[in-house]
Amino acid sequence: MRDANIVVIGGGTGSFTLLDELKDYNDHISVIVCMSDDGGSTGVLRDELGVLPPGDVRQCLVALSRNPKMRDLFNYRFDVGTLKGHSFGNIFLTALEKTTGSFADAVVEASNVLRVEGRVIPATLDNVRLKMTWPDGQCVEGEKDIDSMHFSQDPRQSLISLSPKAKLNEHAIIAISNADMIIFAPGDLYTSLAPVLAVDGMKYALEDSRALKVYVSNLVTKQGQTDGLTVDGHVKEIERFIGAPIIDTVIYNKRIPSEELAARYASEGSYIVPIDSEDIFRMAHYEAVGADLLGGIETKEKADILPVTRSYIRHDASKVVKLIKEVYTKNSND
Amino acid sequence: MRDANIVVIGGGTGSFTLLDELKDYNDHISVIVCMSDDGGSTGVLRDELGVLPPGDVRQCLVALSRNPKMRDLFNYRFDVGTLKGHSFGNIFLTALEKTTGSFADAVVEASNVLRVEGRVIPATLDNVRLKMTWPDGQCVEGEKDIDSMHFSQDPRQSLISLSPKAKLNEHAIIAISNADMIIFAPGDLYTSLAPVLAVDGMKYALEDSRALKVYVSNLVTKQGQTDGLTVDGHVKEIERFIGAPIIDTVIYNKRIPSEELAARYASEGSYIVPIDSEDIFRMAHYEAVGADLLGGIETKEKADILPVTRSYIRHDASKVVKLIKEVYTKNSND
Repeated sequence: MRDANIVVIGGGTGSFTLLDELKDYNDHISVIVCMSDDGGSTGVLRDELGVLPPGDVRQCLVALSRNPKMRDLFNYRFDVGTLKGHSFGNIFLTALEKTTGSFADAVVEASNVLRVEGRVIPATLDNVRLKMTWPDGQCVEGEKDIDSMHFSQDPRQSLISLSPKAKLNEHAIIAISNADMIIFAPGDLYTSLAPVLAVDGMKYALEDSRALKVYVSNLVTKQGQTDGLTVDGHVKEIERFIGAPIIDTVIYNKRIPSEELAARYASEGSYIVPIDSEDIFRMAHYEAVGADLLGGIETKEKADILPVTRSYIRHDASKVVKLIKEVYTKNSND
Repeated sequence: MRDANIVVIGGGTGSFTLLDELKDYNDHISVIVCMSDDGGSTGVLRDELGVLPPGDVRQCLVALSRNPKMRDLFNYRFDVGTLKGHSFGNIFLTALEKTTGSFADAVVEASNVLRVEGRVIPATLDNVRLKMTWPDGQCVEGEKDIDSMHFSQDPRQSLISLSPKAKLNEHAIIAISNADMIIFAPGDLYTSLAPVLAVDGMKYALEDSRALKVYVSNLVTKQGQTDGLTVDGHVKEIERFIGAPIIDTVIYNKRIPSEELAARYASEGSYIVPIDSEDIFRMAHYEAVGADLLGGIETKEKADILPVTRSYIRHDASKVVKLIKEVYTKNSND
């Protein structure tokens, strides 16, 4: 797998840990990143300075960085004064977009400073907002607002779009076309994966690609959004976003977390994603591969403003990457 | 002069243009920078985040940078929103000081990013304020306040100090000890040169050094501070700050600027620094070398908050550096 061209599609924490691990096994990673974030430090910079959203791109750059000091710097968040709440990496990308006149150039320069191997590709360079519309005309706009919503109607009936219509970045088209494997990273369905997959041109790029397409299934459901959604239910939604049944392999976790941890998640309305019956997996057009993918308990997590100490149900990235390698090798030999 | 070890002492715009030109003729420049700035973006960052002042260091790093895109980035100043008034370079150094825990490390990392040849050395790593005290006990503290003052008493009677007492950075001691030439850059006597020269240990370092010591004389006087002060008067003040008569050569401008420009400066209380009589220069312990050192009219100047379009009486850095080379060569052959 070392020399394979790998494309990762996502944005947010799910991609971060996967990329951070994957870069030790592959030098040709292109990550195609969600460009509709409008919350937190990113939202303030978009609103005040009219720039493209730096947050998700920053996270992926940091994940692929091989310069520890610059990594720390890009992750630094000011905690007092007029800069309070801003991530340094966001400010860096914003100022670079202003001086170079191009977000794409800013990402390239930041990649050099961070010694990124691989490429971070904004899904689109258009300035867009995420939008969900239901058949009865109900409509919500803005990733931040959608992220915190409890949907009053079934989200599987909604149309996900970007407003105005966004064009797929040509570097994303090339990366997908040259890919040997495309990994759909775990993450919020409606605010991490949908915004990338809803970019105009993504369906055709993915359909044209001969790469092995692997989805790393989410571990837990999101209250008010994906309650009760099974592994197969997640795949169906992702393929609905794309508009084509193109997933080849689904990797899912089989291990049950501790009762205590599960109970805390349950108290917040989140549950382990239910695993479908063997019959369902047997009849699916994709191969479902289950394994223990749970990580040790993390104790520190960078929240949007300040670090918070908590335990989480998280992937063990090394287990996930090991399984991805096995899946890739098996499919290459077939 | 290519291989000479050159130390430049200063901070502020006077050093900037000199360094920018000098770096094309020498690869071993160390600049020892004033660390008492407390105004503008720098002052806000010091007050809010407790960091050392990044502003003068940033200007010198940019002057010695060989990476045009990073140069532009470091000079970028936010003009709207919550970041308004902040220079990106100041934010960069501040965040790096926070993540590395050391301003000195931050300067080294920033030097790498900017591809700086030579070294930028903070005069001290102590957190200090500039202080002027008169014999009658009158006292003013803070570089920003001193900078904008019209002195009510003769500043030549004042004691310039740093509060608390500052220790000379050991890298500055080494640079001075290894120097073949030390250049005192033109700049505000009481707020650019005095704060560097008042650092504890500077007198001994300079006295011990066998380098050729050259002062590039200021072009104009500063209202309320150096009114009427001649070239020799400037040298005397600088040597008073140091505490020893160590200047070997003084380079001064002989050309008269246009009447129109001089009149505008006069309306703001600034005048061309008067040139002393031949007798005075003949009796001085230093050699005085006069030449046409005036530059073309600059039209755009980065002021603290926004760029301003104006004409200035400024050094032509290439003429200054050419004369410095001649002086250095002559003294090397003597």
